[in-house]
Amino acid sequence: MQKSTLSAARIWDHCERLARFSEKPDVLTRVFLSQEQNAASQAVLAWMRDAGMSARVDPIGNVVGRYEGEREGLPCLMLGSHLDTVRDAGKYDGMLGVVAAIECVHALQAAGRRLPFAIEIVGFSDEEGVRFGATLLGSRAVAGTFRMELLGDRDRSGTSMREAMDAAGLDADAIPKAARRREDLLAYAELHIEQGPVLEAAGLPVGVVTAINGFSRLRVTVSGTAGHAGTVPMSMRRDALVASAECVLAVARIGGAEPDLVATVGRLETFPGAINVIPGEVRFTLDVRAPNDEQRLRAVAAIVAEIGRICGARGLPVQTESLQDSPVAACAPWLMDQVAAAIEAEGLPVHHLPSGAGHDGMAIKAIADICMLFVRCEKGISHNPAEAITLEDAEVSARVLLRFIEHFSAAQGPA
Amino acid sequence: MQKSTLSAARIWDHCERLARFSEKPDVLTRVFLSQEQNAASQAVLAWMRDAGMSARVDPIGNVVGRYEGEREGLPCLMLGSHLDTVRDAGKYDGMLGVVAAIECVHALQAAGRRLPFAIEIVGFSDEEGVRFGATLLGSRAVAGTFRMELLGDRDRSGTSMREAMDAAGLDADAIPKAARRREDLLAYAELHIEQGPVLEAAGLPVGVVTAINGFSRLRVTVSGTAGHAGTVPMSMRRDALVASAECVLAVARIGGAEPDLVATVGRLETFPGAINVIPGEVRFTLDVRAPNDEQRLRAVAAIVAEIGRICGARGLPVQTESLQDSPVAACAPWLMDQVAAAIEAEGLPVHHLPSGAGHDGMAIKAIADICMLFVRCEKGISHNPAEAITLEDAEVSARVLLRFIEHFSAAQGPA
Repeated sequence: MQKSTLSAARIWDHCERLARFSEKPDVLTRVFLSQEQNAASQAVLAWMRDAGMSARVDPIGNVVGRYEGEREGLPCLMLGSHLDTVRDAGKYDGMLGVVAAIECVHALQAAGRRLPFAIEIVGFSDEEGVRFGATLLGSRAVAGTFRMELLGDRDRSGTSMREAMDAAGLDADAIPKAARRREDLLAYAELHIEQGPVLEAAGLPVGVVTAINGFSRLRVTVSGTAGHAGTVPMSMRRDALVASAECVLAVARIGGAEPDLVATVGRLETFPGAINVIPGEVRFTLDVRAPNDEQRLRAVAAIVAEIGRICGARGLPVQTESLQDSPVAACAPWLMDQVAAAIEAEGLPVHHLPSGAGHDGMAIKAIADICMLFVRCEKGISHNPAEAITLEDAEVSARVLLRFIEHFSAAQGPA
Repeated sequence: MQKSTLSAARIWDHCERLARFSEKPDVLTRVFLSQEQNAASQAVLAWMRDAGMSARVDPIGNVVGRYEGEREGLPCLMLGSHLDTVRDAGKYDGMLGVVAAIECVHALQAAGRRLPFAIEIVGFSDEEGVRFGATLLGSRAVAGTFRMELLGDRDRSGTSMREAMDAAGLDADAIPKAARRREDLLAYAELHIEQGPVLEAAGLPVGVVTAINGFSRLRVTVSGTAGHAGTVPMSMRRDALVASAECVLAVARIGGAEPDLVATVGRLETFPGAINVIPGEVRFTLDVRAPNDEQRLRAVAAIVAEIGRICGARGLPVQTESLQDSPVAACAPWLMDQVAAAIEAEGLPVHHLPSGAGHDGMAIKAIADICMLFVRCEKGISHNPAEAITLEDAEVSARVLLRFIEHFSAAQGPA
């Protein structure tokens, strides 16, 4: 059997190329159904085909490549990650997992190897949820858990998801056809940068993920009364921003009260939003995460109660709406063992760690057991243009992934 | 001499018509250099011509009408107000002053009357400053105090003021030609809704304005570190929004500590502004007003110091930039006397009051003495679709304005 060899330089180059498909030239922003996302998808399709895969764009805009096994039509090991980014993003979050997986298949093809299972790679079209607020749209469609009522949601410019799909040449009504059956998948494995400081502190290039922390996401709308900034006395104001400022401080206080718990207001908007108008309405987002579902739900309840108390004391109506609620997603022990074995075979110590960030595996877990391989990133910085990894870590992590694929045994999984 | 008669119904109808020139059909928003502003200008030009005036759009987009006096080329009494609106605005702020002035000229023309001075009416193109943050752009151009460096300022979509002028068919380099000479103006008089609760409380339809309160406007930028909302522990965060929330509460506290002082954060934006990213930067506006310049400047200094202390304690750099600083603009006693005489002649008590809101007179004061006539508005609500006046108040205020015009005597002013 010929040895499969990887090109770390190509992984690097492909990450650099993907980073250029952006809304603006100076910073990386690539959101769901944008023109730049379509351009990125075309590049990934070409790379997949170059690696010997058949490749297509599915109804939700995911790029899906398939490398057949020893015979056509075998169930697959699914690999993947996402191709969308946050605003002003780094170059590796999501992209590295897609690009490294393609490189692994490229190596298999170059060595003329076919495995006793097919490999599919999915570049998910939306994981971050930047455009419409709800995340994991691509992987939910694949898992068959996409909620069609989301098609009515609108982005900041007022375009609905359905309209955006039309504009991108996708048929929204066909989304259910993106769903895959449990019997088609042997497992789902994702390589991703850690986005946290643990592996760097441990001096290790890679680690085995134990679970993806659960998260709750909410949208809060505080209603006040808009008025002229020069004529309404301070004592007569019903300023939605002043109340919201108290809420933001309460979120930080409650989120900081327990270890491992985090709570974030990432977006806050004032309406009408003019220098000389008292804010009549404020909308803000809330993101709460914990490694333990009970802890997370308790924190969300405490925050919602405190927001209600703050606004109630000011006589302002407040609405809190749950956008997403995702329990802890545990990785399958039988898959974690195989990832650990691949790491050991590369002569590296095995380090287990949870994921503070959400990943597509949270959705795919509905149809397959999941596992993840984390790659060290500089200072744990992510969702930021300063996101950085080394070429050496890219190479070693891809080698681990390739070894995992080559030795993957579905027989070790549950029936 | 034929008696000049006004049509309150036409004033009302013109306000209703102007309210339809909007960015969106359901709410009134009409900002500087927008297509809807151009459409509104065309309507106002037609009404001016119908009232016997020559009318044109000046280089900054102001609509300027002129009704000659007993002979051509006499110095003018300038009347006016603004045609732009805040977002989600009412129908009378600005518009009523333009429409009522045109109706007065209409009445003069219908009666075949020419006065010993010309009348000019200006519908200013930007008073609110919604699009580019800086206010009074139209009246500053007329006063010759427009700062050409503002042409580089950009709106939220990234369009510069110069580009927006190009798109509106206006020549930015010609703005200095909009400036008027002091010797061309005898005085400036503006009719405007009060936008506050004083006249309603006094049970009076109109009042004489004594002065326009001074204001200070600033832009504050708080810099933190963007990061992943799931992976950065609360204790390691440099969250620009949490610090800004403390600042917003400090603004409300300091603004509320003294009577007559008001301080407002009207717009606050989070960057990158995603549900799952810790805000790395927050920009917010600050608007501080007082009837006394010393009181206002003291409050601004206290707020800026407190913002510096809050951000310093969190280790976050903060930048405060002064956008505008406008001293109290006193109305000229000789003009206030003539406004008061017109009110008395209508059989109404004379009530004097200051203006909490800014007005175009603040800019025109650089080239002429100014006065203002306030009109009662319901509950003092303004900058809000609930802004309301009565047809009766529209009529009586226009009658007072017409009487003021008919009896205007520049001889009573300073040489």
